[in-house]
Amino acid sequence: MSDRQKEVTIYDIAQKLNISAATVSRGLKDHPGTNKETKKKILAAASEMGYHSNSFASSLRTKRGNIIGVIVPRLNSNFMSDVIAGIEKVVNESGYNLFISQSLEEMEKEVSNAKAMYNNRVDGLLVSLAYNTNNINHFEAFIKRNIPVIFFDRVHEHQQCPSIFIDNYKAAYNITNHLIEQGCKRIMHIGGSQLRNVYIDRFNGYKRALEDHKIPFEDELLIINDLSAQSGARAAQQILEMKTQPDGVFVANDLCAISCMQLLKKQGIRIPEDIAFAGFNNDPTSCVIEPNLTTIDYRGYEMGEVAAKVLIGHLDNNNDLIQTHSLILRSELIVRDSSRKKE
Amino acid sequence: MSDRQKEVTIYDIAQKLNISAATVSRGLKDHPGTNKETKKKILAAASEMGYHSNSFASSLRTKRGNIIGVIVPRLNSNFMSDVIAGIEKVVNESGYNLFISQSLEEMEKEVSNAKAMYNNRVDGLLVSLAYNTNNINHFEAFIKRNIPVIFFDRVHEHQQCPSIFIDNYKAAYNITNHLIEQGCKRIMHIGGSQLRNVYIDRFNGYKRALEDHKIPFEDELLIINDLSAQSGARAAQQILEMKTQPDGVFVANDLCAISCMQLLKKQGIRIPEDIAFAGFNNDPTSCVIEPNLTTIDYRGYEMGEVAAKVLIGHLDNNNDLIQTHSLILRSELIVRDSSRKKE
Repeated sequence: MSDRQKEVTIYDIAQKLNISAATVSRGLKDHPGTNKETKKKILAAASEMGYHSNSFASSLRTKRGNIIGVIVPRLNSNFMSDVIAGIEKVVNESGYNLFISQSLEEMEKEVSNAKAMYNNRVDGLLVSLAYNTNNINHFEAFIKRNIPVIFFDRVHEHQQCPSIFIDNYKAAYNITNHLIEQGCKRIMHIGGSQLRNVYIDRFNGYKRALEDHKIPFEDELLIINDLSAQSGARAAQQILEMKTQPDGVFVANDLCAISCMQLLKKQGIRIPEDIAFAGFNNDPTSCVIEPNLTTIDYRGYEMGEVAAKVLIGHLDNNNDLIQTHSLILRSELIVRDSSRKKE
Repeated sequence: MSDRQKEVTIYDIAQKLNISAATVSRGLKDHPGTNKETKKKILAAASEMGYHSNSFASSLRTKRGNIIGVIVPRLNSNFMSDVIAGIEKVVNESGYNLFISQSLEEMEKEVSNAKAMYNNRVDGLLVSLAYNTNNINHFEAFIKRNIPVIFFDRVHEHQQCPSIFIDNYKAAYNITNHLIEQGCKRIMHIGGSQLRNVYIDRFNGYKRALEDHKIPFEDELLIINDLSAQSGARAAQQILEMKTQPDGVFVANDLCAISCMQLLKKQGIRIPEDIAFAGFNNDPTSCVIEPNLTTIDYRGYEMGEVAAKVLIGHLDNNNDLIQTHSLILRSELIVRDSSRKKE
């Protein structure tokens, strides 16, 4: 393929139409003083010749690239692809562009993603932290230059960064409470990285519900893993090998819950009669597995929209970010057959 | 929040350290002639003061923004989020950035997305077309300026744009053939927009397999809809109201197949005994639904990686795009219990 063609300028258009460059410029800007027919000719020529409106250079002038950066653990999870779709909708409608990258759950990659975003002059950053991120120094450069950073879902306390999330503690408390009300007395919890708020809070909500019903917490009934489908199958194996099996399991995501249920079912465990199950996220799979999975509904699309709106509201209208320090979104317990021991 | 701080330059760093700007510049570029201790001091000061390496201005100089644009129908589908994750991996490793937008299945939004990508000077574009796009004139501006456009999955014939897809015709032929081998004689097809290659080809592969087995194609056994879960439930209703029901159904995606199966099961239809089912995509849900769904496996992640590699190979090494006119990726028939009438 040949080299790029020379950039088409308003002067080229002016020459072609035999009019002044100023007229071309006014025509392209839809200036009221331009003759209608001339404007038509200018637009047709601009399109035919491949003229770019000069948003790139003007973004440099105003020091605004109109770019929102997003860093998430993984782009291909049900929850995260909903979040991204919600962010894209708002960002696109507001005339911004979206730079997207994934940390693949590794802090190291998250740091290098943040660096790339910084060097490419994003106007603001939306971040959900990787599994093993243990500090957020890599966002200090943004904060120092007043480039807003907003954390969502997997958040981190920071004086200058608002956070958007659901009340994971309360949701976990409610779902554990529901298992207890169904008669469960030995409830296992399968949770994720205790570096991340979402998994710490779900674990603590579970523990508190046990306490409130005077059920002692047992170490044997806690499994911490990466909440993948593979880990769900391994957890099922562990359950099968236990002397006294649990009569209820609360898993911190649906993916892991479902693969655990599938393996147990194959081994003849009846759900919910032998073991009641509850997950988290309301993935589409949760209403396909039989019995359908009790879970927490927690709208990713809405979280993406809200995060993008807060960020753009700040950028465009200077809404104060510090005042909105935390934004707690609604979540809801969805009871399905996987945990219905009583009717 | 206060206004942006003034941009930190190498001159500010030089002044602070009381050395020359040239030394600062060499130190930041890791030039071999710089004293190790000085370099350390320069890097520390640059970091502390919030200095940006000047990739934005230099991208303007070289007329390269290092941006790959992606336009897809929806970000939140299993298949597409896998594709995006594959693209992101390659793009990020190659030092490019990713601009992402979704058409929400509307040509009008696709046109405006393309415009925004063009005005923001993407270096290349990866596109999967919306449901109702009926021409690709909105990509002509790119092609005219030698900005490569590559179509993937939902593609369009164009002399200068390579396409990456799977052999939908053959996959549909194979899956229909499999249903016939299982004894099905009245096979329904539920397909998508006949503007899109993927759905035209799946329909034609189905029709050809019938012909090859001397099974007449019947209009009554063809439903064209938007392949959503809602449309799957509506199709199930149509099936229940038919005088002679089909004994096999091949649906052009898993999402629609599964919701159709769920409703039929509730109404007492036995799968596969009464009606055998086959889908397309191998979504995670296909091995959760009972019975598990026979489908076509078709790796989105791999398609994303390949599309990004072809594009970046062209941009970085001037690999000839025109020579790679079409790239056909592997797909595979996965037989599961939803279609196993014979063992």
